[in-house]
Amino acid sequence: MLIRKMPPLALSSRFRQSITPDALRSYLAEFISTFFFVFAVVGSSMASTEGDPSSLVTVAIANTFALSSAVYIAAGASGGHVNPAVTFGMAVGGHISVPTALFYWLSQMLASVFASLVLRVMTVSQRVPTYAIAEEMTGFGASMLEGLLTFVLVYTVYACSDPRRGPLVAIGPLVIGLTAGAGVLSAGPFSGGSMNPACAFGSAVIAGKLKNQAVYWVGPLIGAGVAGLVYDNVVFPPEVPAVSIRGVSDAVGV
Amino acid sequence: MLIRKMPPLALSSRFRQSITPDALRSYLAEFISTFFFVFAVVGSSMASTEGDPSSLVTVAIANTFALSSAVYIAAGASGGHVNPAVTFGMAVGGHISVPTALFYWLSQMLASVFASLVLRVMTVSQRVPTYAIAEEMTGFGASMLEGLLTFVLVYTVYACSDPRRGPLVAIGPLVIGLTAGAGVLSAGPFSGGSMNPACAFGSAVIAGKLKNQAVYWVGPLIGAGVAGLVYDNVVFPPEVPAVSIRGVSDAVGV
Amino acid sequence: MLIRKMPPLALSSRFRQSITPDALRSYLAEFISTFFFVFAVVGSSMASTEGDPSSLVTVAIANTFALSSAVYIAAGASGGHVNPAVTFGMAVGGHISVPTALFYWLSQMLASVFASLVLRVMTVSQRVPTYAIAEEMTGFGASMLEGLLTFVLVYTVYACSDPRRGPLVAIGPLVIGLTAGAGVLSAGPFSGGSMNPACAFGSAVIAGKLKNQAVYWVGPLIGAGVAGLVYDNVVFPPEVPAVSIRGVSDAVGV
Amino acid sequence: MLIRKMPPLALSSRFRQSITPDALRSYLAEFISTFFFVFAVVGSSMASTEGDPSSLVTVAIANTFALSSAVYIAAGASGGHVNPAVTFGMAVGGHISVPTALFYWLSQMLASVFASLVLRVMTVSQRVPTYAIAEEMTGFGASMLEGLLTFVLVYTVYACSDPRRGPLVAIGPLVIGLTAGAGVLSAGPFSGGSMNPACAFGSAVIAGKLKNQAVYWVGPLIGAGVAGLVYDNVVFPPEVPAVSIRGVSDAVGV
Repeated sequence: MLIRKMPPLALSSRFRQSITPDALRSYLAEFISTFFFVFAVVGSSMASTEGDPSSLVTVAIANTFALSSAVYIAAGASGGHVNPAVTFGMAVGGHISVPTALFYWLSQMLASVFASLVLRVMTVSQRVPTYAIAEEMTGFGASMLEGLLTFVLVYTVYACSDPRRGPLVAIGPLVIGLTAGAGVLSAGPFSGGSMNPACAFGSAVIAGKLKNQAVYWVGPLIGAGVAGLVYDNVVFPPEVPAVSIRGVSDAVGV
Repeated sequence: MLIRKMPPLALSSRFRQSITPDALRSYLAEFISTFFFVFAVVGSSMASTEGDPSSLVTVAIANTFALSSAVYIAAGASGGHVNPAVTFGMAVGGHISVPTALFYWLSQMLASVFASLVLRVMTVSQRVPTYAIAEEMTGFGASMLEGLLTFVLVYTVYACSDPRRGPLVAIGPLVIGLTAGAGVLSAGPFSGGSMNPACAFGSAVIAGKLKNQAVYWVGPLIGAGVAGLVYDNVVFPPEVPAVSIRGVSDAVGV
Repeated sequence: MLIRKMPPLALSSRFRQSITPDALRSYLAEFISTFFFVFAVVGSSMASTEGDPSSLVTVAIANTFALSSAVYIAAGASGGHVNPAVTFGMAVGGHISVPTALFYWLSQMLASVFASLVLRVMTVSQRVPTYAIAEEMTGFGASMLEGLLTFVLVYTVYACSDPRRGPLVAIGPLVIGLTAGAGVLSAGPFSGGSMNPACAFGSAVIAGKLKNQAVYWVGPLIGAGVAGLVYDNVVFPPEVPAVSIRGVSDAVGV
Repeated sequence: MLIRKMPPLALSSRFRQSITPDALRSYLAEFISTFFFVFAVVGSSMASTEGDPSSLVTVAIANTFALSSAVYIAAGASGGHVNPAVTFGMAVGGHISVPTALFYWLSQMLASVFASLVLRVMTVSQRVPTYAIAEEMTGFGASMLEGLLTFVLVYTVYACSDPRRGPLVAIGPLVIGLTAGAGVLSAGPFSGGSMNPACAFGSAVIAGKLKNQAVYWVGPLIGAGVAGLVYDNVVFPPEVPAVSIRGVSDAVGV
């Protein structure tokens, strides 16, 4: 199946399709995966020593490891979004209906709040950390930075779920995790390297610091939407045939 | 073969099936893999400087690297459990008989004690470290934390061994290792991040500190059992068809 | 398709083939991937604490993570070079035409300059770091070191895009990233571990330090060219059949 | 092709088979891969700050990254041994003839000496590090530790090159690298974590410290030989059918 657009349907029938057993299973899969991802990201940030240089590596590989797993275990049920920006990017590309996307968002945000709450309760005296912006940066710059990285992340999700990739499909969840980890390594000390509004939201709710939320929603959602449009319409339009590493490179040169 | 339940059998015939040559090979495979996993996890903890912030990364990637390898090399003989909680979760789901599961447990625990003993003898003056609970946490909280992470680990094992994953089956052992590593990164300083009762048991026996053992058995076994039930019956029931990253997500939306 | 050489063509028709829609899509794919790679590599260098020992690991895994992703997401459109030395090595082997290669170079260098500029602007007060040569080394030694590592990198790219690898093709982008990371870990403090002239160029332009550019171009381009010749003509000539790990080893021994 | 034993042949005809063009290509492939592996391992040790706790992670991931790549790029030509212990283990199992194995050893040792020499010359004032044994350990204990880990490494190589693994064959080179990395993380500060006599030999020749060589040859060669015998004859004898993660586990339980 190549990238398949959904046929137009009345909103009411769209909504009915969002509460079928398969759909409910997909929301539960998103909940479990997002819970684990947020637990690992926020937990690793609490576990690493604040101010120690090695904490950047700690949090980055927690992002990579947990996102790869989270995408993998949800793959068959929900597609493994684990991130409202990914869901938004998929909706912009027409790969998920708007009512279903809203239920995904709800699952993801509940899971993130719940993961942050469990960490807070279990560790007793620890405070839950939130994403922070470097002093020299503006909120606008931080949101653009997060948006740029989210563009790449959602573009990667599109690539990893493109059946034209052939054998490369097998490593898709790993590559999505690697993209997230590279994003954290490059942006961590500047804008936090969230690329995931649900993760930023859940930890902020439990920490009681909702001030910078717009930064972690506006940029990432714009980046995600643009990624969906660019992948589907510009770089890999539906008429392009199957994909390989050298194959196409040779073809271009001939 | 989709997830196949075992037909009911008399206990005596079950037991006879647990001592066939194939079964004995599977116990040996579990022994070798668990020995290597525990050796790497406990050894890396002895090798890293106590109290240094980088030791969290050291132990976490030792978990990831060794568990991926351990699962891989045992895959064809025993399924690569390497963990009594995984074996328990598989027994709850009906994928392994109770007598066979008990022999798996025996192999895993012997291997863990032996690995800890070898480390103690070879390094001469070094003491064998055991999992520890942060001062501010209760034993109950620590056991719940370990149980939550073990839930995710066993859920991941179920996902990675589900033939409906198609090409994603190829990276299964890597994803299991990544899940364990993410667990260590998020829980290491709080409850130790064991997720494996055998590993906790072996190091504790050799160190002579069996005090907290209940913490590392009760939570993980409950988490493992719940994972098996949720995966098989709720999120991926047997009637659900083949799995892909975007495929199902599109299907849900239509 | 085995390694296919391009038929001889007039330069003008070659040039026309370099501005088809497919070709333009490939330049855009190179731009996006190189932008992300340079952003992650230079960004992680800015993010890590200068002089801290853990910064070597930070930059190395940023190289690995970002290059694996960058190669993967461009795979179907451009072959995922992300590096003028790789493009040069592919041109020497006859897998891409010279006019197309020049457009790849242009895309890669523009992307690198743009990524460095965005980092400079967004982080406001931070200076953009450039590759540096250890005091005790000569420029010639550093260029040879970079050339040696680029030889291995381009040789790896050839291996990963060789369809005779069978199932191993699936992990190609990961292996390319691992080779780059190993290069950084071994050469980082000596010559910087660039192996990518575009990355060295972009950061140097924005930092205004173009002094050592020859070091990061001459060695890597020679290494890349040699790699293409050795892979295609010596170690894996076209007549050699399909490839497996043990298969051929057994065959050699018989 | 399942694990195929070589038919008995006269030594002279065996030797002639060791100097065919295919055989010569395999020695060159071993040389290139071993050069890169030793360069990365010794180079990363020189690059990391001595005595800093993060150097254990640096050297371990250099082992993992470089060995995965080195095995991958040689896979089609030589089987990707990169290690005299692996070659010995394959010879014990009858998968490579003795004359061919000797040429492999020659290639691997020349490559290791050359890699160490290049590092010494290029970095000018740096001394080449060698594997060292912790003060509290005996040479016998260190050799046993190295032997144990080499057993697991060669056992992993057997598993990764076993065609019965089905789709898991695709990640074989990565798993071999992960096993090596886990070995370094657990044994680094005790016996060095070499598991590779060529790597120990090359760095010792250039550093002029050949004192402990027996430690890094005796244990690893014994471990490698035992691994070949145990894998082929005990845990995965030839009559055992195709392999999957859960499949066999279910089968055992029924």
